Amino acid sequence: MRDAFHIFPVGTVHFENGRPLIRIFEEFAPALLNLESFSHLVVLYWFHKNDTPERRATLRVHPRGDRSKPLSGVFATRSPMRPNPLALSVCKMESINGLEISVDQIDAFEGTPVIDIKPYLPRND
Amino acid sequence: MRDAFHIFPVGTVHFENGRPLIRIFEEFAPALLNLESFSHLVVLYWFHKNDTPERRATLRVHPRGDRSKPLSGVFATRSPMRPNPLALSVCKMESINGLEISVDQIDAFEGTPVIDIKPYLPRND
Repeated sequence: MRDAFHIFPVGTVHFENGRPLIRIFEEFAPALLNLESFSHLVVLYWFHKNDTPERRATLRVHPRGDRSKPLSGVFATRSPMRPNPLALSVCKMESINGLEISVDQIDAFEGTPVIDIKPYLPRND
Repeated sequence: MRDAFHIFPVGTVHFENGRPLIRIFEEFAPALLNLESFSHLVVLYWFHKNDTPERRATLRVHPRGDRSKPLSGVFATRSPMRPNPLALSVCKMESINGLEISVDQIDAFEGTPVIDIKPYLPRND
């Protein structure tokens, strides 16, 4: 077993009237300075429902669970079952209000832990 | 202190004659099936040199260390100093040879731990 790295949630995903928002924990408020100058964000979050030894040991899946599709390695899919259940969405930012960032969409659940936010840089990404 | 999630390296970055490649650990070989069908990858890796309590507590930086630029929250920069030192590069895949994936560029060092690989999907990303 190799050494593990530790990651901590910096906020959580919520839905208000079906509209997604990211609520950052208060201690990370300083990290939001100038975020409003970007139109799109890269949001990294944790597929916490897939953080089990069995799911993390799954290395091949049928894409989107469709058994008519041939097995693929999880690195060739966006499956939530993967060695490190990291999720990534590029989100359009609708607004920031204090610790709450409203986004257009995110493929997450109520309470999904958010672990990082980065500006989306079209030239690089 | 909130619960930590654990992530494990699935490979490492290396440079051969200055050309970057990702070497996946043998136990993850099955996860590579079909990866060759994509032209670009999202590579997630760990800024291991910044995995110290001081750097992870840094919430504002001068972008690119340039003091003439105003302080920004780390979520509004790609700084390696951030609560979870996760790094992300979109890489063009040059070739796959067994466990080695050659890419056009990656902003990493010799031995940087790779923690996830996903296909780049232009429509989503």
